[in-house]
Amino acid sequence: MSEHKDRLNALRAELKSRKLDGFVLPLTDEHMSEYVGAYAGRLDYITGFTGSAGNGVVLLDKAAVFIDGRYTIQAAAELDPALFEHHLFTKLPLLKWTTDNLPKGARLGYDPELTTVGWEDAARKACARKGVELVAVDSNPVDTVWADQPSEPMAPAVPHDSKYAGQDTREKRAKVAAELKEAGADAAVITMLDSVAWAFNIRGKDVMNTPVTHAFAVMNADETATLFINEKKVTSELKQHLGNSVQVEPRDAFYDTLAKLGTNGKSVLVDPATNNAKVFKTLRDAGAKLIEGADPCILPKAVKNETEQQGARDCHIRDGAAVSEFLHWISVEAPKGTVDEMKAVQKLWQCRESHGGLKDKSFDTISGAGPNGAIVHYRVSEKTNRPLKVDEIYLVDSGGQYLDGTTDITRTVIVGTPTAEMKDRFTRVLKGHIALSTMRFPEGTPGMALDAIARRPLWAIGCDYDHGTGHGVGSFLAVHEGPQRIAKYSSDIWLQPGMILSNEPGYYKEGSYGIRIENLILVKKVEENTEREIYEFENLTWVPIDRNLVEASLLDDVELKWLNDYHAKVFELVSPHVDEATRNWLQVQTAPIMVM
Amino acid sequence: MSEHKDRLNALRAELKSRKLDGFVLPLTDEHMSEYVGAYAGRLDYITGFTGSAGNGVVLLDKAAVFIDGRYTIQAAAELDPALFEHHLFTKLPLLKWTTDNLPKGARLGYDPELTTVGWEDAARKACARKGVELVAVDSNPVDTVWADQPSEPMAPAVPHDSKYAGQDTREKRAKVAAELKEAGADAAVITMLDSVAWAFNIRGKDVMNTPVTHAFAVMNADETATLFINEKKVTSELKQHLGNSVQVEPRDAFYDTLAKLGTNGKSVLVDPATNNAKVFKTLRDAGAKLIEGADPCILPKAVKNETEQQGARDCHIRDGAAVSEFLHWISVEAPKGTVDEMKAVQKLWQCRESHGGLKDKSFDTISGAGPNGAIVHYRVSEKTNRPLKVDEIYLVDSGGQYLDGTTDITRTVIVGTPTAEMKDRFTRVLKGHIALSTMRFPEGTPGMALDAIARRPLWAIGCDYDHGTGHGVGSFLAVHEGPQRIAKYSSDIWLQPGMILSNEPGYYKEGSYGIRIENLILVKKVEENTEREIYEFENLTWVPIDRNLVEASLLDDVELKWLNDYHAKVFELVSPHVDEATRNWLQVQTAPIMVM
Repeated sequence: MSEHKDRLNALRAELKSRKLDGFVLPLTDEHMSEYVGAYAGRLDYITGFTGSAGNGVVLLDKAAVFIDGRYTIQAAAELDPALFEHHLFTKLPLLKWTTDNLPKGARLGYDPELTTVGWEDAARKACARKGVELVAVDSNPVDTVWADQPSEPMAPAVPHDSKYAGQDTREKRAKVAAELKEAGADAAVITMLDSVAWAFNIRGKDVMNTPVTHAFAVMNADETATLFINEKKVTSELKQHLGNSVQVEPRDAFYDTLAKLGTNGKSVLVDPATNNAKVFKTLRDAGAKLIEGADPCILPKAVKNETEQQGARDCHIRDGAAVSEFLHWISVEAPKGTVDEMKAVQKLWQCRESHGGLKDKSFDTISGAGPNGAIVHYRVSEKTNRPLKVDEIYLVDSGGQYLDGTTDITRTVIVGTPTAEMKDRFTRVLKGHIALSTMRFPEGTPGMALDAIARRPLWAIGCDYDHGTGHGVGSFLAVHEGPQRIAKYSSDIWLQPGMILSNEPGYYKEGSYGIRIENLILVKKVEENTEREIYEFENLTWVPIDRNLVEASLLDDVELKWLNDYHAKVFELVSPHVDEATRNWLQVQTAPIMVM
Repeated sequence: MSEHKDRLNALRAELKSRKLDGFVLPLTDEHMSEYVGAYAGRLDYITGFTGSAGNGVVLLDKAAVFIDGRYTIQAAAELDPALFEHHLFTKLPLLKWTTDNLPKGARLGYDPELTTVGWEDAARKACARKGVELVAVDSNPVDTVWADQPSEPMAPAVPHDSKYAGQDTREKRAKVAAELKEAGADAAVITMLDSVAWAFNIRGKDVMNTPVTHAFAVMNADETATLFINEKKVTSELKQHLGNSVQVEPRDAFYDTLAKLGTNGKSVLVDPATNNAKVFKTLRDAGAKLIEGADPCILPKAVKNETEQQGARDCHIRDGAAVSEFLHWISVEAPKGTVDEMKAVQKLWQCRESHGGLKDKSFDTISGAGPNGAIVHYRVSEKTNRPLKVDEIYLVDSGGQYLDGTTDITRTVIVGTPTAEMKDRFTRVLKGHIALSTMRFPEGTPGMALDAIARRPLWAIGCDYDHGTGHGVGSFLAVHEGPQRIAKYSSDIWLQPGMILSNEPGYYKEGSYGIRIENLILVKKVEENTEREIYEFENLTWVPIDRNLVEASLLDDVELKWLNDYHAKVFELVSPHVDEATRNWLQVQTAPIMVM
């Protein structure tokens, strides 16, 4: 850990030379990404914290990392307590700690490429209250002291074929342009990586597990656009794909071009949630007229077209075959005591690869045996690797990236015999899963309105789970994609036909086991004639749900029929694509459950 | 209608004399009330529109009223089309219409006592975009031209006994003072009428059906307070009740006192949602430090104490006896063809009065026979009065104001024989009602999360209802009380033990019938030991649900048990308090429903 001491000292020396008394270290990049490339891992570099969410602050005499409850144990393990405090941001927010620990007149630095204007506003107010000056830096001081900082990823950007995208980039640009005209904007600034990938039908390998390329874009109301991307990534095939209406500029020409928009007095649509603060400042300083609104790619990206919907159906059958083969393997090998969490991850990857078309996993597999399954964001390591033991539950949450779609599935299985409590909790999670899966709802229903439907069977006995019930999923893009969500809070976006979501209620007993049942579901319009326009979900994921964990007496007739119908369809769709042993296993696993 | 022409002309002359090109007419008072006294009925006076929600604008050459969908028919009937346009505000917002119809440089007047700062901001921006000047008036021009404007109501303000309130005003002031200190405020401005009534344990008769008195208040962090109220309303009993720590000032000293708070450099808690814009301006101009936050009385008012909870239980038994007698009377008289909607309203009032303690109704009774029941906000008049006919549905939504609580109940009954469709829809509404009533949920659940639970059985067949599922209810106060709500939108307040809400799903078939089943429910903590803190609802309303409209085959075992248990408890609680004929009727109506 002494390397972090050296790095911290170097950063503090740099801050002093810049007359700064502190500096903020957010865990994001200039695209406001959830997952960042290695070059942007500044928080990790300085502090050693490797969690996927958290923010840090370095002052001249102390430093701290602010995390949520999922990362308490990890922060304690990774951070040197002599160097870093760590706090739950809900109990002690970063800005409160920072302004409490800075004297009046102090200067707190931040990188405007790594924050939103909302954070900037809140920080300015918090600092003003304590007489602290908030200072935007032109270059990040961590980069100055980070000698071996990885360079920006340079994987080539490749065209994403319309036979998968369902719409060419010209059509997409025309659609966005129409919206810009409606909003009175001449141009929109697009900085979210998956928005850029969607708009131009390009994919890349610049971010782990999410097939995007590092680029910015400006889309214009005249249907032209400029893509700002390192020329090394641009193949001649890509140039041809983009056509004449898309100008390709170097990535570092981005802010200069924004300034030109301002000088020319353009009206520019900017998104406070996805564009960084430097985008706002550059445009504002140059005299642009800012129109605030959501990134115009977000909604059409979330509402999958017919081709993308069919792609999702197709890739889920291949993915279902792979996961079925994997679960069959678990059922044979785990009782022998020879499987551990890491081996399982490898086997699952092999199963997915063997079914063809796999481009990547869609996120790091969660492979949790026994008590490890109760850690919601568990990632197996050499240190935590645990064998799958008899009479214990094993939870596996994984997904694949295919050209025709992105998958995300969780299955929970028992090795050996479950306890009555395990069956009760599993069946309640299943009841919630079924209730959401069979829900019908009218136009105008936000995801938030459906969340309790999935929790109700657990709530009835005083249990719950501390994560959302569903997140949006991209089409050969991010496995976490907005704006749709099914959760207790902040999910007021109306669900629309074409949106793909996960349906993943769970239950976690700390120190014992974790349960989650996750399928992807597609919003579609009910075909029959009804008084109101009504939507329902089409199921996309086809893999058996472990019947050994089902307490059938807790299911009502409708739920039991759902489960039996589901399993019949799993067999119908998946069995033609698996090896014979798995097919025989599938036959048993998907046979109807009878109740007297 | 020519009187409205004269009034409009007089108002326009007044506007011209003030160099105004238009004036905004919101339907509220200086307390931002939902229901206003006659003196504040300015929109009605000028336009003739008597709906309970809507806003108007008068320009020099045109005028318009902006309504929601409930009032389309009423607006068409009441407004002279030669004088007034009317528009759905969702399709054509007031500010858009107004700024589109005013030339650049025009001056649009508004009364800052009748708007929030939020509206003021939006209006300022909308006007700026079109080069229109927004002008706050010092006195309302409608009042200038309204010769026979009713004077402010002058009913005496009376103490509300602690045996009903459960807490004396000193305790309440101490609680609010503690919150003010926490927020760093020296004082809070209280302008909501029911907040004033709650804080000082006073009641009045200044607003129809809501026992409040017209007054403002300033509550201080030192536990003292000033009540601004017309001295004619203040009895010596009230003075004594308020004690020495509450200073009584004339109502019109309110703004001067606010200015003094500013001059003295005080920090003042102001609520953008309930304080009017003049409050903000007065404080700001005088140099006060404004701290924005919710009126500190709102939450403790919503969370009923033990005494108020017991009062709610008690008054609901009296109210249940009254409504049961009424429904028994309907069952006997309606089939004879001698009952109409107005007669029913009278009879219901008599039944409530005969059970004692009735202070007022809690709102105008909705008494809708056949197609009139499908009009959600129906109010019977001589013109619309309709007999209760055989084989038609009758919907009655009513409530009482008692010293120990406020009631609100809807029952839907069939006179004669229902159709299969009527039974299907009624039973689906009942299933939704039961689902919400039996719901358990953890701390941190907003009302919005529970709304779909009640709608699900209707959504399943493509039906819905266009109103919220539940509203908060006061304790001998407003029948619509915030902040809690159960609705599709804008109900993100967490439900807390002690809150009273309505549970009122419905179904409306235009031109045919309306169905609604409404009980009040009280949030309470589940007593058994559970992993998480879990809440449930205690039922408060006890009146039979019409078994002739129940299609028992649509109910599952749990639902049927709920209905039979509910009816058994209705008989147990209510039968001792009704006349013999009603008791015999109750016995039949509450007998268990058996299903083979």
